[in-house]
Amino acid sequence: MSKKLKLGLSPGSLVYVGRAVDDAPSQLRVIKYCEKTYDKKIVQNLDIDTTNPAIVIWLDVDGIHDHLTVEKAGEAFKIHPLALEDIMNTNQAAKIEFYDDPQVFVQIKMLHLKGRQRCSVDTELVSFVLGNNYLVSFQEKRETDIFLPIVDRLQASVGKTRKNNADYLLFALMDLIIDNYLEVVEAMGERIDQLENSIFDKSHKDPIPELYALKREFTLIRKHVWPVREVLQVILRGEADSLNDSTLPYFRDLLDHVDQVLDNITSYRELLTSLVDIHYSMISNRMNSVMKTLTIYSAVFMPLTFIAGIYGMNFDNMPELHQRNGYFIAWGVMITIVVGLLFFFRRRGWL
Amino acid sequence: MSKKLKLGLSPGSLVYVGRAVDDAPSQLRVIKYCEKTYDKKIVQNLDIDTTNPAIVIWLDVDGIHDHLTVEKAGEAFKIHPLALEDIMNTNQAAKIEFYDDPQVFVQIKMLHLKGRQRCSVDTELVSFVLGNNYLVSFQEKRETDIFLPIVDRLQASVGKTRKNNADYLLFALMDLIIDNYLEVVEAMGERIDQLENSIFDKSHKDPIPELYALKREFTLIRKHVWPVREVLQVILRGEADSLNDSTLPYFRDLLDHVDQVLDNITSYRELLTSLVDIHYSMISNRMNSVMKTLTIYSAVFMPLTFIAGIYGMNFDNMPELHQRNGYFIAWGVMITIVVGLLFFFRRRGWL
Amino acid sequence: MSKKLKLGLSPGSLVYVGRAVDDAPSQLRVIKYCEKTYDKKIVQNLDIDTTNPAIVIWLDVDGIHDHLTVEKAGEAFKIHPLALEDIMNTNQAAKIEFYDDPQVFVQIKMLHLKGRQRCSVDTELVSFVLGNNYLVSFQEKRETDIFLPIVDRLQASVGKTRKNNADYLLFALMDLIIDNYLEVVEAMGERIDQLENSIFDKSHKDPIPELYALKREFTLIRKHVWPVREVLQVILRGEADSLNDSTLPYFRDLLDHVDQVLDNITSYRELLTSLVDIHYSMISNRMNSVMKTLTIYSAVFMPLTFIAGIYGMNFDNMPELHQRNGYFIAWGVMITIVVGLLFFFRRRGWL
Amino acid sequence: MSKKLKLGLSPGSLVYVGRAVDDAPSQLRVIKYCEKTYDKKIVQNLDIDTTNPAIVIWLDVDGIHDHLTVEKAGEAFKIHPLALEDIMNTNQAAKIEFYDDPQVFVQIKMLHLKGRQRCSVDTELVSFVLGNNYLVSFQEKRETDIFLPIVDRLQASVGKTRKNNADYLLFALMDLIIDNYLEVVEAMGERIDQLENSIFDKSHKDPIPELYALKREFTLIRKHVWPVREVLQVILRGEADSLNDSTLPYFRDLLDHVDQVLDNITSYRELLTSLVDIHYSMISNRMNSVMKTLTIYSAVFMPLTFIAGIYGMNFDNMPELHQRNGYFIAWGVMITIVVGLLFFFRRRGWL
Amino acid sequence: MSKKLKLGLSPGSLVYVGRAVDDAPSQLRVIKYCEKTYDKKIVQNLDIDTTNPAIVIWLDVDGIHDHLTVEKAGEAFKIHPLALEDIMNTNQAAKIEFYDDPQVFVQIKMLHLKGRQRCSVDTELVSFVLGNNYLVSFQEKRETDIFLPIVDRLQASVGKTRKNNADYLLFALMDLIIDNYLEVVEAMGERIDQLENSIFDKSHKDPIPELYALKREFTLIRKHVWPVREVLQVILRGEADSLNDSTLPYFRDLLDHVDQVLDNITSYRELLTSLVDIHYSMISNRMNSVMKTLTIYSAVFMPLTFIAGIYGMNFDNMPELHQRNGYFIAWGVMITIVVGLLFFFRRRGWL
Repeated sequence: MSKKLKLGLSPGSLVYVGRAVDDAPSQLRVIKYCEKTYDKKIVQNLDIDTTNPAIVIWLDVDGIHDHLTVEKAGEAFKIHPLALEDIMNTNQAAKIEFYDDPQVFVQIKMLHLKGRQRCSVDTELVSFVLGNNYLVSFQEKRETDIFLPIVDRLQASVGKTRKNNADYLLFALMDLIIDNYLEVVEAMGERIDQLENSIFDKSHKDPIPELYALKREFTLIRKHVWPVREVLQVILRGEADSLNDSTLPYFRDLLDHVDQVLDNITSYRELLTSLVDIHYSMISNRMNSVMKTLTIYSAVFMPLTFIAGIYGMNFDNMPELHQRNGYFIAWGVMITIVVGLLFFFRRRGWL
Repeated sequence: MSKKLKLGLSPGSLVYVGRAVDDAPSQLRVIKYCEKTYDKKIVQNLDIDTTNPAIVIWLDVDGIHDHLTVEKAGEAFKIHPLALEDIMNTNQAAKIEFYDDPQVFVQIKMLHLKGRQRCSVDTELVSFVLGNNYLVSFQEKRETDIFLPIVDRLQASVGKTRKNNADYLLFALMDLIIDNYLEVVEAMGERIDQLENSIFDKSHKDPIPELYALKREFTLIRKHVWPVREVLQVILRGEADSLNDSTLPYFRDLLDHVDQVLDNITSYRELLTSLVDIHYSMISNRMNSVMKTLTIYSAVFMPLTFIAGIYGMNFDNMPELHQRNGYFIAWGVMITIVVGLLFFFRRRGWL
Repeated sequence: MSKKLKLGLSPGSLVYVGRAVDDAPSQLRVIKYCEKTYDKKIVQNLDIDTTNPAIVIWLDVDGIHDHLTVEKAGEAFKIHPLALEDIMNTNQAAKIEFYDDPQVFVQIKMLHLKGRQRCSVDTELVSFVLGNNYLVSFQEKRETDIFLPIVDRLQASVGKTRKNNADYLLFALMDLIIDNYLEVVEAMGERIDQLENSIFDKSHKDPIPELYALKREFTLIRKHVWPVREVLQVILRGEADSLNDSTLPYFRDLLDHVDQVLDNITSYRELLTSLVDIHYSMISNRMNSVMKTLTIYSAVFMPLTFIAGIYGMNFDNMPELHQRNGYFIAWGVMITIVVGLLFFFRRRGWL
Repeated sequence: MSKKLKLGLSPGSLVYVGRAVDDAPSQLRVIKYCEKTYDKKIVQNLDIDTTNPAIVIWLDVDGIHDHLTVEKAGEAFKIHPLALEDIMNTNQAAKIEFYDDPQVFVQIKMLHLKGRQRCSVDTELVSFVLGNNYLVSFQEKRETDIFLPIVDRLQASVGKTRKNNADYLLFALMDLIIDNYLEVVEAMGERIDQLENSIFDKSHKDPIPELYALKREFTLIRKHVWPVREVLQVILRGEADSLNDSTLPYFRDLLDHVDQVLDNITSYRELLTSLVDIHYSMISNRMNSVMKTLTIYSAVFMPLTFIAGIYGMNFDNMPELHQRNGYFIAWGVMITIVVGLLFFFRRRGWL
Repeated sequence: MSKKLKLGLSPGSLVYVGRAVDDAPSQLRVIKYCEKTYDKKIVQNLDIDTTNPAIVIWLDVDGIHDHLTVEKAGEAFKIHPLALEDIMNTNQAAKIEFYDDPQVFVQIKMLHLKGRQRCSVDTELVSFVLGNNYLVSFQEKRETDIFLPIVDRLQASVGKTRKNNADYLLFALMDLIIDNYLEVVEAMGERIDQLENSIFDKSHKDPIPELYALKREFTLIRKHVWPVREVLQVILRGEADSLNDSTLPYFRDLLDHVDQVLDNITSYRELLTSLVDIHYSMISNRMNSVMKTLTIYSAVFMPLTFIAGIYGMNFDNMPELHQRNGYFIAWGVMITIVVGLLFFFRRRGWL
C-alpha cells in the first residue's frame, strides 16, 4: 500500500500504491453511444468490439486498488504494462504518454476539499486511455463517482458530447476536473478573506500557523495543476491520430482555464505572504506601544518615588521637613515634574 | 453570473460571467467609413454587407451581458462559438486566437481607477474580431463608452484612421487602452509619493496595510498587462492576412508602450518594498530610542531611590543620620552619581 | 586521498579521491546470463569473451580505491582513460559520456542515511560502462553490496531482467538506486514531522540549528539528484546503439521518479522555511507576552509604591497623617487605582 | 510636455515629451569628412547631397524639443514618422529598429550625475539614424554638448574615425556614451564606500534611506543600460547593409563593456543589501546591550531597595532595628547580594 | 592605470589597465618542443618560425604592463589589435574570441588568496592565443610564475603534454588554473567552518560583518568563474581548426570541474545565509532570556517593595503596626507572594 512495499519488487509489476480502500469491489461500467443510440451496462467481464468506428465506447473502471480488474481492462484494450503500473500508483503526477499509436495515455489529478474548514485538499488519480473510437477511464473508489454529471448528460443527450467522437468525451471529462480546480482554489480564497479580516480585527489567535498551512496547501495544488499545463500543451501539438483537429480549440480553452487557475494560485500565495508581513507589522506596532507605555510610566513615577524617598529619610538635620508648607511645596514640585514630562513626551510624539 | 453557475453546464454554452449589470440594454452601433464617406447608426438588427472592400465597417457591441445581442453579432460575422463564450466571460485574460482565417480574435482588459483615493483598479473586458475590412468590438456596459474619442475623431476625420483599413482601427482602439495603462500606473505612483512623504514625516498611521494593498494592486495590473505583451508579439509575427505589413510598425510601437508600463510597475513594486523596509527601519530606530530612554531613567533613579531608602531605615544605630551635614552629604553623593552616570552614557553614545 | 594530492599531477593519472578505506581488497564478480543459463564467479584476472551477443556479461567491481583493479577492468573492456579517472574520483557528480561508441559511460550517486537520527546523508559513487551485451559496474567498498537484490533476482530468474539485454540490467540497477532516493527523502521527511510537532509543543530546545541542518542536507541531496535528470534525458534521446528503443520507456519511467524526488525535496525545503518562520512567530509572540506582563506589573505597582512613599515622608505638617481614617482612605485610593488600571488594560486588549 | 498631453492625440503626431527647455533654439551642425577633407558648418536649412559614397556626412541635431527642426532633419534623410516620434519622446528606452533598409535607427540613453553628492542620475536621450554614408544624431539641448570630444578628434584627424565609414562614427559615439556608464557607476560605488565606513563607525545617522535611494538609482541605471545590450546584440547579427563586417568586432567590444557595467551594478546592489543587513545587525546588537544594562541595573537595585524598604517599616516590634550592629549587618547583606548577582551575570556571559 | 585614464582616448589604443607594477620588466620566454626535443630561451626580440608543424612553440609573456612587449608579441604572431587591447585590460572577464581563424583567443582569471586570514581573493588576468602549432600566453608580473609546474613537467617530459600539440598545452595550463579555483573555494570553506564553530560557541564577536564579507568574496569568485563555463562551452562546439577533436574530451573534463566549483560556491553561499539566520536566532533567544529575567525580577520585587512601603507610612492610626507579630506576619505574606509568583512563572514555562 505504501511506496516501500514496492521497493523490493521487480520494476513493472502491478501494485496498488495509495490510500487504504475498505474492500469495496471495483466496478466496470461500459457505455456505448452514437448520436442516435445509447447503451449503459455494468459488466463483470470485458468482451468489447471496437471495430465499428461510428459507435463510441466508454469503459469506466471505478476502483484501481484491484489489480485483477485493471489487468482485465488492460488486456481488453491492449494497454502498455508501464501505463497499467502508473494507473495503480496514486503518487503519479499528471502526465501524457504515447505508448502505442493511436493510443494516448493521460493522467490527471482530481482535487477534493476536505477538513473541517474545507481548506485542505485531497487528490484522486484519474487516468485515461484514448483510442480512435473508445475511451477507458480509471478512477479511485470513493463515495462519489466524479463522472456522474457526464453520464447523466450523455443519457439525456444534452450538449455536444453525443454528436462527437471519443476525444470530445475526453475533453468533457477533463473540463469537469479542471473547472473543479478553480472552484477549489476559490473556496480556499474565501478562507483567506476570513483570515484577513480576523488579522485586521486584532483577534488574539496567532494566525501564522494557518497562513503557512494554506500556503503549503497552495504549493501542493500548484504541484498537481502545473503538469496539467504540459499535458495540454502536448495534446495541442496535435500529433496523435486519435485527437481530431476540430477538438483542439476546446483543449486550448482548457489550457486557458489552467493558466487562470495557476495565476490565481500565484496571487493567493502572494496575498498570504503579505498577510504574514502585515501580521508582523501589527505585532511590532503593538509591542512598540507596550514599550512606550512602560517607559512613560517609569519615567513619570521614578522621579516622584525618589522625591518621596528623600523626605522619608531620617536625618536629624533636614530643614525642609520643618518648614510649614514643606509638604505642599513637595507636592507642587512633583506635579510640576509630571506636567513637564508629559509635555516632553507629547513633543517627542510618544503620547 | 458567477463562475459557479457555469460548472454544471455543457462546455460551449453562452453564459455571462461578470459583475451585475442593472438591466441596461445592450447597444449595437455600426459605423461605415472610407476616406471620403462616414456613416453612423444605432441598429437593432444586423444586416451587414461586407463585400465592398473599400468600405470599413465597425460594429461596436456595448454590453456583453445579453447573450442574444452577442449571438446576433456572432451570426452576422460568423464568429466561432468558443470566441463568443470568451467574449461573455469577463474573467478572461488578454489573449489572441486565429479561429478561422482571416478572422483575428483579440481580447484585452481596460483598466479603470476606482475607490476614494483612486488607487485601486477595476477592469473591463474588451474583445475584438478583426476581418479583412471590418472590426467587431465588444465592451462591457458602463457609464462611459471608452471608444468615444475614436468615434469623434473618425467623424471629424482627424488623424490617419479614416485613410487606413480595419487593422489600423484595431491599432487605434488598442492604443487608447494601452495609453490608459500608463496613466493608471502613474496615478498610483503619485499615491506612492504621498505615502513616502507621510512615512518620512513620521506620521502616526501604520502605512503597512496600504503599502501592501498598493502592491497587490500592482500585481493585479501586471497580471492584466502581461498577456497583452504576448498578444502583440503574436500580431507582430504577421501571420494573419487581415493585418497589413504597413500597420505592423504601429503595433511594434504598442509593444514598446506595454514594456514601458511593465517596467514602471516593476519599479513601483520595488519602491513599495523599499518603503516597507524604511518604515520598519524607522520603527526599530524609534523603539531603540524608547528603550534607551527607559534604561537611562532606570539607571539614574534606581541608585538614588536606593540611597534614599537606606537613610529611611529605622535602625537605632545609624551614625550618618546624626551628623550635622549628613543630609547634605547624601545629596552630594546622589548628584555625583547622576553626573557620573550621564557622563558614562554619553561616552557609550546613548545620549 | 584528498583533492589536493591531485593538484600537482599531470591530468589523466589514476588516483583514488574519496574517503579512507581500511585495506579491504577490491573484488571482481563476473555474472554471465541469458534467459536459460546463469553463471556467477569471483575472479582475480579478467579474460572475458564478449563476442557471443546472446550472453549478457555483468562485471561488478566492488572497491574503486585500488587503481590496479580498476585498470584491469579498464583494459579488459577498453574503457577510456578519462572515464577510469572519473570512476576513481568520488567527488564526481552524476554524468553521462559517450567516449567510444557503442560504449556508454554513466555515473550516479547512491545515497545512504547515516547519523544517530538517520537524517544526514552519505554518498557512494556508482559508475557504469554499458556495451552492446555487457555492463561493467563500479561501486565503493562498503559494508553492504547495494546490488545484491538484483544478483539474487537474476539467480532466481524472477522479473524481466534475464529476458532482456544489458541495457535492461542497467535500468534495473539504476531503478534500485533511484527508488532509494525517494526512501531517503521520505525518511528525512519523517524527522521534519517530529520537529514540527516539537515546535508546536513549545518545547524549550532551539530548533533552528537542526532545521538549517536539514535544509543543508536537502540542498546536498538535490545537488546529487539533479544531474541524474540530465543523465536520463541524454539516455532518452536514444542516440546510443547499446540502448534499445524498447528499453527507453523504462528510462522515461525513471525520469518520472527522479522528478518526483526533486518535487518532494522542493516541498520539504519550503516546509522547513515555513517552520523557521513559525518558530520565530512563536518566539515573538512569547516575547510580546513577557513584555506585557512586565508592563502591567510596573504600571500597577509604581503608583502604589509612590503613594506609600508619600505617606512615609517625615514632614512635620502633613494633615492626612493625623486623620482618623487616613490609613484606610489611602488603601481605598490604592485599590481604586489598581481596579482602574486593570480595567484600562483589559479594554486595550492586554489582559 | 508630459505624457498626458499626448494621450488625446492621434498616434504618430510629433510632440516633445521631456523636461522643460528654456527656449534655447535647436541647432543643426553638418560635418562632412573623408580621410583627406573635413568641413564643419552650422546651418539653418538642410540641402544635403549624400550621393558621393566617399564622403561621410554627420548631421548633429542639438535640441529635440523643436518639432520643426526634427521634421526638417526627417525630411532631408527620409526618416520614418514613427522614428521621428520616438526621437522626441525622452521616455523611450534604448532600442533599435530597421524601418527602411539600409537605414538603422538606434536610441540610447546618456547618463549624467546630478545632485549635491553626485549620486543620483539624470538621463539624456540620444538617437541615431545610420545610412550607408551618413549618420544623423539627435541630442537633448543641455549645457554640454556630449559629442564635442569626437568633433575635436575628427577635426584633429586623431584616431581611426576619419579613415572609416559612418558606422565607425556610430561606434565611436556609442563608445563615448557606454564608457561614461562605467564612470557613473564607479562614482556611485565610491559613495557606497563612504556609507560603508560611516556604518562601521557607528555614526548616529540612520543610513537606511540613503542605502535605499542608492539601490533605486542602480535599479534605474540598470533599466537604462539593460536594453543597450539588446541593441548591440541586434547590431552584432550583422543584418544591416550599412554596418560593415569589419566594424562588428568593435561593437562586440562595446557589448563586453555593457556586460561589465551590468555586472558591477549587480555587485553594488548586492553590497547595498548586505550593508542594510549589517546595519540591522548592529542596531540589534546595540539594543541587546541596552536591554542587558537595564536588566542588570534592575536585578541589582531591586533587592537592595527592598531591603532598605523593610527596615524603613514602622512596626513596633522589629528586633533587628534595635541590635547594636543591625545597620552594618544590613549593609553587609546588601553588598553580599550585589557581589553574588554580578558573579552570576558574569557567569551567564552578560557582563 | 585606472579605467578613467582610458576614457579620453580613441578606442583601440593599447593602454595597461590594472594594479601598479613596480617597474619590473616584462619577460619573454620561448619554449620549443616536440616529443623528442625541448628548448627553453629567455629572449629580447622575437623572430619565430612557426612553419614546422611538428614543433610546438610556447611563448610566455610575463608582464602585460609594458605595451611595447605586448605589441612585439602581437606583431610576431599577427594578433588582432582588439585582442591586444583586451590582454592589457585586467578588468576583462573570461572570454573567447575567434578573430582570425585559426587563431583562438582565450582569457581567463587566475585566483590568488590574500589577506591575513587568506579568505579574500585577488585576481590575475591570463590570456592565451592558440594557433595550429603555437601558444602565446600572457600573465601579469607577480612574485610567482603560475606556469612553472608545467614548464618543469615539460622539461622532465612527464605526462602527456610533450606527446601532444599546442591545444593540449592550452588544456594543461587551463587545468592548472581551474584546479586552483577548487583549492581557493575550499580554503574559504574552511574559514566558514571556523566561523560556524565560533557562532555555536556563543563567542561575543559579532560575526555578521565577516559572514557578509565572505559572501561578497564568493559573489566575486562566481563572477570570475561563471564566464569560464561559457569559454569552455564555446571550445566544446569544436569549431576552431586549431583545436583537435581528440583534445575535446579533456576540455569537457574541465567543464565538469568548473561546474563543481560553481556548485560548491552555491552551497557555501547558502551555508553563509543559514549562518546569518542562526546567529540572529541565537541573538533573539538570548534577548528573550534577558527580558524574562528582567520581568521575573520586577514581578517579584515590586509587590514586596510596595508592602514594605505600606508599613513605612507614618499614619497615626495603623493598627497592624502595633500588633505583637505584625512584622513577622508581614514577612510571611511577602514570602507567600514570592513562592506563589515563582510557582506561577514555572507553570508558564518562564523558569
